Order: sequence, then structure tokens, then C-alpha cells
Amino acid sequence: MAYPNLIDGRAIAEQIHSETAARVQDLRQRGVRPGLAFVRVGEDPASRVYVGMKERACARLGIVSITQVLPDSTTEAELLALIDALNASAEWHGILVQAPLPSHIQSSRVFARVSPLKDVDGFHPENVGKLMLGDPSGFVPCTPGGVQELLIRSKVKTDGAEVVVLGRGDIVGKPMTSILCQKSPQANATVTLCHSRTRHVSEHCRRADVIIAAMGVPEFLKAEMVKPGATVIDVGVNRVPAAGTKDGTKLVGDVDFAGVQPVAGLITPNPGGVGPMTIALLMRNTARAAEMFLAK
Amino acid sequence: MAYPNLIDGRAIAEQIHSETAARVQDLRQRGVRPGLAFVRVGEDPASRVYVGMKERACARLGIVSITQVLPDSTTEAELLALIDALNASAEWHGILVQAPLPSHIQSSRVFARVSPLKDVDGFHPENVGKLMLGDPSGFVPCTPGGVQELLIRSKVKTDGAEVVVLGRGDIVGKPMTSILCQKSPQANATVTLCHSRTRHVSEHCRRADVIIAAMGVPEFLKAEMVKPGATVIDVGVNRVPAAGTKDGTKLVGDVDFAGVQPVAGLITPNPGGVGPMTIALLMRNTARAAEMFLAK
Repeated sequence: MAYPNLIDGRAIAEQIHSETAARVQDLRQRGVRPGLAFVRVGEDPASRVYVGMKERACARLGIVSITQVLPDSTTEAELLALIDALNASAEWHGILVQAPLPSHIQSSRVFARVSPLKDVDGFHPENVGKLMLGDPSGFVPCTPGGVQELLIRSKVKTDGAEVVVLGRGDIVGKPMTSILCQKSPQANATVTLCHSRTRHVSEHCRRADVIIAAMGVPEFLKAEMVKPGATVIDVGVNRVPAAGTKDGTKLVGDVDFAGVQPVAGLITPNPGGVGPMTIALLMRNTARAAEMFLAK
Repeated sequence: MAYPNLIDGRAIAEQIHSETAARVQDLRQRGVRPGLAFVRVGEDPASRVYVGMKERACARLGIVSITQVLPDSTTEAELLALIDALNASAEWHGILVQAPLPSHIQSSRVFARVSPLKDVDGFHPENVGKLMLGDPSGFVPCTPGGVQELLIRSKVKTDGAEVVVLGRGDIVGKPMTSILCQKSPQANATVTLCHSRTRHVSEHCRRADVIIAAMGVPEFLKAEMVKPGATVIDVGVNRVPAAGTKDGTKLVGDVDFAGVQPVAGLITPNPGGVGPMTIALLMRNTARAAEMFLAK
């Protein structure tokens, strides 16, 4: 590998996929075919790509999947009715409504309608609350759960560590904080949650043993903001203009990789870092949802 | 007042009580008598005192209350059955199960059984999740909600401020973090949540504009840990040995008040700071529960 300090998200995701595949096989032997229902509204190109990647992961692991594609003009009531039907089905153990939804639909109402027992994204308020309470009966959201797995399997100690989370989004920043503040040897971090109103963000970053960048600002984290030897996790996916590419754009993370990589102790590439982990955790959550269904 | 920099929790709680009393009168004129049901298990002396104070606050404001006292030997199933009955009642808009519960009862299961619509303590996972998501349809837990009101009504700016929360308990520390990290002019703080595994707690405190002490360690916060001019909120209630008192003990907070008061910009006394606010928020939540019942 070109950089000796890379956290290989693809390899770690493969480990988790192997574990999940074994659980899926076990479920099938016990008569349950784990099933994941995707709901996609409209033709957002990124959503199509994401759902496609998740469908392929299901197929690889033996998870049955279905994708319900609804037109952009779908009303909130229609979408909620579909979710109710999926909630009631014995066939689909997990339900994933792909964000973003069209602006005439209130996303929070939709995510709260998915049964907490099928909420493999971990977006339902009850699961958000259980995460903060350290109650393991809920679903851990895929991206921050994937970041924690990256840290654990890369032997990055968070116990007693100073962690800075950049970005207070509902999908990554907030649940990341909930995960890492728990009283557990795999958490136990002192977490500072920074955001657009933070005045001393560079100072916070420079003190951190671990920085998790998830604010959606292209290449925000620069080398001079990183303590030598710190672990840097890049969750960002930002499309920026770029000369010489097919569509005139490229994807970059929230970390200035070229600058930060020589300073960091460990760092995730992007792509190939957090992204594969998100899918690995989604598959694992789906196997778990099917196990919970079987145990009922 | 002996100290010019005191935050008078009793006076601010009275402001909120007046506002709540007006809401209660309005509800009564519309035919709804707001009702709060207390459930107390066993004879923990502190629980008796707390429930008694809350009962008197109800009586003052025109809120009907009932207190169900169950013996220490009550089973979890019996307690859950009582909660189910209260959930189903049209008479009781709020339900408060006083902690601590006997050790043979799993508190988390009990708090999760209270209907989220009657959960005036804000302990149900769904309300914990809504708090983190910034969804105002849930109930804000009384003590951290009271701390936010103290800050707002004392004109302590949290927007852009560095806030250190000491203690990661489910009742205060964690929800305090959820409240103050929100994107809102009354929040917007950069919050660092410190706890027993935090290595550099003094340094974190010395950088803070606001320190909220809620870890349950008597007089933990000393003058040298406080930046001159910082706001200090003491949530602690600790019983410690004391010579010359009737029972040989006294109550102290998590802040060394005598040492810290001269350094702090503003500081809560203890008692007379956060305590009255907890009750004021409970009354306000109960009025709100009755309003939600009426709106159904």
C-alpha cells in the first residue's frame, strides 16, 4: 500500500461481511430468509448509486432485497402507507428509506414511521434515544457504528482519549457522540462536538487524539489542525468542480488527505474508508433484525 | 443578596410557575383539569422528600395529583401493570415514577413503559431521541431543561460558547449535551462531555465559558479549575458527613462554592439553584401533557 498508515475500510468491511454471511446462513438453516426492503423516492442520482451498492451487498450475503421506487410526486401519506405495509410484513425484517426525500415530504415523520424493530438505519427516535442511553436493544446507525468498528478493529484506543467530532448532523455527528461517550472500554472517550458555531475549532482539533470529520465541507481539515500521530477518520462525501473529469466534478472528503496523511498516526482513505463500513453495518443490522424476528 | 453574582434559581422557577399557572387556568376553563400521577416504590427517604415537594408544587398551581405508594416487595410486573393503567387513564396526563427503584426492578424497562405522551420526566427512549434530534414534539427532561432555562433567563449566551458538562449520567449529563449542541440561538454551544475516564478534566474546565457540574462528586469543582468570569451551574446533591448537624450529615453540591464563587462570573447557589428549576420544568411539562391531551 502506498501509505503505511491507512485504515483499510474495505478490508475491515470484508471481515464484517464474513461474520454477517455466517449469521445469514444460520438464519436460513433455521428457516428465516433475512429480507431488506429499500424505498427510494424520485431519481436522485446519488440515491440510485447508494441503493444499488446496498442491493449488491445483500445479494452477495444471501439477504433477499426488494427496492420500491416511487415517483417524485409521491405524497407523504402514500409513502407512510407503504411503510405501514412493510412494517406489517413478515417477509421484510429491515426497512431502509433512502435519504434525501423530496422537499414536500417531512423526513423526520417518515423515519419515525418505520417500526423501531425494522429500523436498520437507526434513525427512529426510539433507537436514537437507546443509543444515547447505552441500551443495546436498539439499532446502531450504520455510518457512526461503522466508524466505531473501524477504530476498534484498527486498535485505536478511545478509552480516555480526546475525540473531536466535526459536524452535528443527525446521521453522523450526533450519534457518533452518543456512541463514543458511553461507559465502555470500546468508547469512554471525552467527546467535543464541534459545528458551524464553534469558535475555536482548530484548537479543539489540535488537542484531539481522534478526529472524526463529518461536516460536509470539502477538505476542511488541514495538516496544521492535526496533532502529530492523531487518528483521522474522514466521513465526508462532497462533490466539487474538477478539471479533466468526465462530468467536470470529483468527490472529495472533509479531510485534506494529501496534507493530513503525513501528520496523522492513522487515517482513512476516501473512498475506501468509511463508505464500505456503512454498508457492512447495514448488512449486520439486517441480519440482527431477522434474528430479532426469529426470537419473537 | 450576599453574593452579587448568584443565579437565583428560586426566583426564576417562580417566573416559570406563574407562566404554568396561567396555562393550567386556561386548561381548566376549557374543561381539562391537568393531572399528574406519582408512583413511588418503597420508602427511600430522599424519594419521599422529592415526591412531597412535587405534590405541593402541583397543589399550588392547580394541578391535580395522586401518589401511588407501592411496597419495596412490588414486582416489576406489578409496577408495569400500574403504569399500563395510568397510561390508559384520561385523568392523568403526566406520569412520574420516582427513581431510584428497588434493585430487583429494571428501571430502564419501567421508564420505557410510560407512554411517551405522558412522560413528563423525559426519560422514555423516544423522548431521549427526540431531544438529540432537536424534535420539539418530545418532553425535555426536567433538570437539564431547567439548567437551560436558568442560562437563558440569566442572559448567559451559549451560542458559540465553550461548555463543559461534568458527568455522563442519563438524567443530567447526557441530555444536557443533547440540549446545548442543537442548532438554535439558545443552544449552539460547543459541548465537551467529561466523565470518570476523562484525562484532562481541569484543562477542559479552565477553557470553558460555562461549566455544568453533574457528576455526583462532593465539591469536585475547585476555583483553580474555573476561568475567571465563567458561569458555573451546580447540579450535584451529595450527602456528606458533617459535625454538629442533627443527623451528622449535610448536603453539598459538586462545586466548592466558597472557593469558586469569587472566581465565577455567575454561579448557582446550592440549594436554591437548579433544584427549584427541576420542579418548575416538571410542572410545565405536565401542563403541556394536558394541552397535548386536549389537542388530540
